[in-house]
Amino acid sequence: MFNKVTIIGMGLIGSSLARIILKKRLAKTLIAADTSLDVCKKVHDLGLAHIVTDQLLQAVEDSDLVVLAVPVGAMKSVAERIAPALKDGAVVTDTGSVKMAVIEAIGPHCRPGVDFVPGHPIAGTEFSGPEAGFAELFENRWCVLTPLPDTSIRSVEKVTKLWEEAGAMIEIMDPAHHDLVLGITSHLPHLIAYTIVGTATELEDDIKSEVIKFSASGFRDFTRIAASDPVMWRDIFLNNKAAVLEVLQRFSEDLTALQKAIRQGNGDYLYDVFTKTRAIRKQIVQIGQAE
Amino acid sequence: MFNKVTIIGMGLIGSSLARIILKKRLAKTLIAADTSLDVCKKVHDLGLAHIVTDQLLQAVEDSDLVVLAVPVGAMKSVAERIAPALKDGAVVTDTGSVKMAVIEAIGPHCRPGVDFVPGHPIAGTEFSGPEAGFAELFENRWCVLTPLPDTSIRSVEKVTKLWEEAGAMIEIMDPAHHDLVLGITSHLPHLIAYTIVGTATELEDDIKSEVIKFSASGFRDFTRIAASDPVMWRDIFLNNKAAVLEVLQRFSEDLTALQKAIRQGNGDYLYDVFTKTRAIRKQIVQIGQAE
Repeated sequence: MFNKVTIIGMGLIGSSLARIILKKRLAKTLIAADTSLDVCKKVHDLGLAHIVTDQLLQAVEDSDLVVLAVPVGAMKSVAERIAPALKDGAVVTDTGSVKMAVIEAIGPHCRPGVDFVPGHPIAGTEFSGPEAGFAELFENRWCVLTPLPDTSIRSVEKVTKLWEEAGAMIEIMDPAHHDLVLGITSHLPHLIAYTIVGTATELEDDIKSEVIKFSASGFRDFTRIAASDPVMWRDIFLNNKAAVLEVLQRFSEDLTALQKAIRQGNGDYLYDVFTKTRAIRKQIVQIGQAE
Repeated sequence: MFNKVTIIGMGLIGSSLARIILKKRLAKTLIAADTSLDVCKKVHDLGLAHIVTDQLLQAVEDSDLVVLAVPVGAMKSVAERIAPALKDGAVVTDTGSVKMAVIEAIGPHCRPGVDFVPGHPIAGTEFSGPEAGFAELFENRWCVLTPLPDTSIRSVEKVTKLWEEAGAMIEIMDPAHHDLVLGITSHLPHLIAYTIVGTATELEDDIKSEVIKFSASGFRDFTRIAASDPVMWRDIFLNNKAAVLEVLQRFSEDLTALQKAIRQGNGDYLYDVFTKTRAIRKQIVQIGQAE
């Protein structure tokens, strides 16, 4: 499918994609690049690429496809560093969870002749690093592409084929709309989970140990989400500020209303809200996204 | 183990316990009682008890053990109704998720000679009703007992043995302390999940359908929790008001601090919180309550 592919950033996402490219022989040469020597060593030991290097500039020379799988906050500096070595006709794509900020960070560094296809494979676990990746990570998961007005259809097709080979389903979306939808479905839930688990970290030691002991009653589900990579999530919140603050505002209003209902003993209000939420779950089960 | 056991309330918890009592032959006679004729019919068709009835008073006559597995808000009226028929030496226990309010509701209706052992098996799913129960529900889960000063040790032992037969681990606790710990580990997480899913129900239709479509990115985990039984949860919040409002206050303060950090672009603060929360997950994994 490709002559030469370079993946920059060999964490959970980058290393999972590398496993797929090797397994399905989607590139004659796969180059894995990471600025961390520790990560490079692990990638080498795991045999996840033909060439492993911490030299980003050399890594992208002659590459047909360059995948940026670094935290959102690192996209700009990586794009700056690799820009001089990108060949004419190269396609650049990324895996960032935020699209508007990433387009601003990468777009200006793709000169005419280099095509940028912003992308976001919606997949992940609470584990990080090259050893956490696996080839099935993207199976039956969505991958959103948010092409720019001047992105060529051919480049979008190339990136589409790559993710389809990984087992993903493709959705084309406007980048601002992507950031709002993911703000609701992903960023707000993570912020809330981080908050509730953070609240628990500040409890007195004896209560904290009991909270851990009896975590299975609901709290445990939040700890899984709140165990996600801290750098990745710090960058997401810093780079999707407007959408996150907007949905957080709506959430806070709704929480205040429930708080008031509890204080006033308004059981009808509580029952009404709790019944509506059950219907949403049913719809998710119906479309096959849950059991 | 028992001559005659009566379970009142044949929902998820009551029907799971009934399955265990029949399977392990823990009672010569098992009586299942429920005020809903619809539930009684299902229980009869599923063969979950020797006798099925909607007459609560007759159901407890001569019973050695009476298990109240109704929503917390129904405990008082059920205790009132059955009190005249409880035999001397009978043990009454319950499965309510709140203990202080349930002790106030049931305690006064247990005359001298009738022993009340307040209990809370910490187990459940998002499904409700007698058809949702299963005999393995309590395996390796905690069951908290909060005996009163005048509860006899023999009665506590009887209830302990019942839950141990169900595969549960027993923890003895002060009822007020139980309500605070569960307020943090269970009630607050459920309230937050209900809120966030409730916020989504009020979105415009086109965004709502996308939220459902891309729910796997975090939101989906909340919908499972927010699909729990509305009556049960309404009653929990109405009956554990003080503890829930207290932990909610702490949560709101922490959320406001994170919101401010996002607004101000304070990445260090976010990174610090997100790193601490990861450690809590590790402890839960270490004690074998998660993978």
